Amino acid sequence: MKRIALGVEYAGDAFLGWQSQRGGGAVQDALEDALGAICAHPVRLHCAGRTDAGVHATAQVVHFDTSAERPLGAWVRGVNALLPPAVVVRWAVEVDDGFHARYLACARRYRYILHNAPVRPALLARRVGWFHAPLDAARMAEAAACLVGRHDFSAFRAAGCQAKTPVRNMYEVSVARSGEFIVFDFYADGFLHHMIRNLVGALCYVGKGRHPVGWMAELLASRDRKHAAPTFSPDGLYLCGVDYPPRWSLPGDGRIIALPRIPLL
Amino acid sequence: MKRIALGVEYAGDAFLGWQSQRGGGAVQDALEDALGAICAHPVRLHCAGRTDAGVHATAQVVHFDTSAERPLGAWVRGVNALLPPAVVVRWAVEVDDGFHARYLACARRYRYILHNAPVRPALLARRVGWFHAPLDAARMAEAAACLVGRHDFSAFRAAGCQAKTPVRNMYEVSVARSGEFIVFDFYADGFLHHMIRNLVGALCYVGKGRHPVGWMAELLASRDRKHAAPTFSPDGLYLCGVDYPPRWSLPGDGRIIALPRIPLL
Repeated sequence: MKRIALGVEYAGDAFLGWQSQRGGGAVQDALEDALGAICAHPVRLHCAGRTDAGVHATAQVVHFDTSAERPLGAWVRGVNALLPPAVVVRWAVEVDDGFHARYLACARRYRYILHNAPVRPALLARRVGWFHAPLDAARMAEAAACLVGRHDFSAFRAAGCQAKTPVRNMYEVSVARSGEFIVFDFYADGFLHHMIRNLVGALCYVGKGRHPVGWMAELLASRDRKHAAPTFSPDGLYLCGVDYPPRWSLPGDGRIIALPRIPLL
Repeated sequence: MKRIALGVEYAGDAFLGWQSQRGGGAVQDALEDALGAICAHPVRLHCAGRTDAGVHATAQVVHFDTSAERPLGAWVRGVNALLPPAVVVRWAVEVDDGFHARYLACARRYRYILHNAPVRPALLARRVGWFHAPLDAARMAEAAACLVGRHDFSAFRAAGCQAKTPVRNMYEVSVARSGEFIVFDFYADGFLHHMIRNLVGALCYVGKGRHPVGWMAELLASRDRKHAAPTFSPDGLYLCGVDYPPRWSLPGDGRIIALPRIPLL
């Protein structure tokens, strides 16, 4: 048996989320079907981050075991030829059987892209979030600074979240305007269910002046979801980096693997 | 009666092209339905460029006549609330009845975005063209220079093209690499059916070294479609600017109205 790790990119709006569904339609289903066809045996995938419906990835990491002897290129070009257009394998490496895409992931990077303009996006519909009223990104950045460190993030946790503990180590947060877009970057050892979408919702309340900058720290300290803002849409959320211990030097480890800037301007 | 001009953005992969279809599904159908609901009477739209299925627009220009008295904002916010996510009205202005979106358009700008990388795009599937083999963009730019000027573009004309003459005035052409992308810009008084997709196909033949730089000028001079390359996919093609005589100063007139750069990096 060999263990293979893959880097995967997908447009989340084309799928019912990462996790396999009874009737199919999840990213996992599409990948397991294509890999199974190349392996000629059923494949079970494990992923670094089980993204919700509508959430995208530029650098999801997955692994599977196979008895099939194939050149590494088959796990990229061969699988890609069988996958639907909205998902693609970017790289494949063989790893030893100590590797696990989920349990060994020690940090994850997520990016939220918000289109802050009066008219909603059409070409970028379902690929960016949208907020029509002007937002003060500098205030949002100031408010977000309190999130860095080891905290109980219960105030930003979905009701159905199954994590054993609400405590996470947030290594870096940044909020910055880029023209009509506001880009939120979060880098942590892990994230609770809906945590980023709840954080973005709360930061938008600060950005439009509904709450003072200090409200974010109060919310965090309250550990109470009832006080926070509504969960933001998944449209603008991208999983764009997963870290593993240096023993496994996977392509892109420790960096954001993102799309190149799209020269639409 | 009033005549209203609109600037329209759409993702072409969500529609069966611009032109109204018997069963619906065209951009024109979606817009006429939404405008008709606001007007409370049927609406007939005229557009600057009848884009094919799969072709996008950041700055399509259309006009229609209405007896309805509505504030200009209704043609933007009101209509957008009724449109599907992949199409949006960006601006609306009242024009006098001498204006015509198609007959008075004196120049159009189109951009083709090609992803030139070994792995096909997933997040940008159907929004950029893809060519897996390395392309020499400098050679392509050199080859494209011969297209500027007044020429008979029969060599790049689709069999079904209904234009009265194959002669067009090409004002500007540029081909430039931007990371993993090659961006083609074309600015002309008008374009024949499939002309840009055929030009891009031929330029890719030059870029991968299948033909010398001088082949492009020979092809143009041959006026024979049989010698050219296959028609490229519509995926990367954007209508991103329409010019009218200065008498009508429409928003964005004479410039590319494009998306802001998308900060995915």
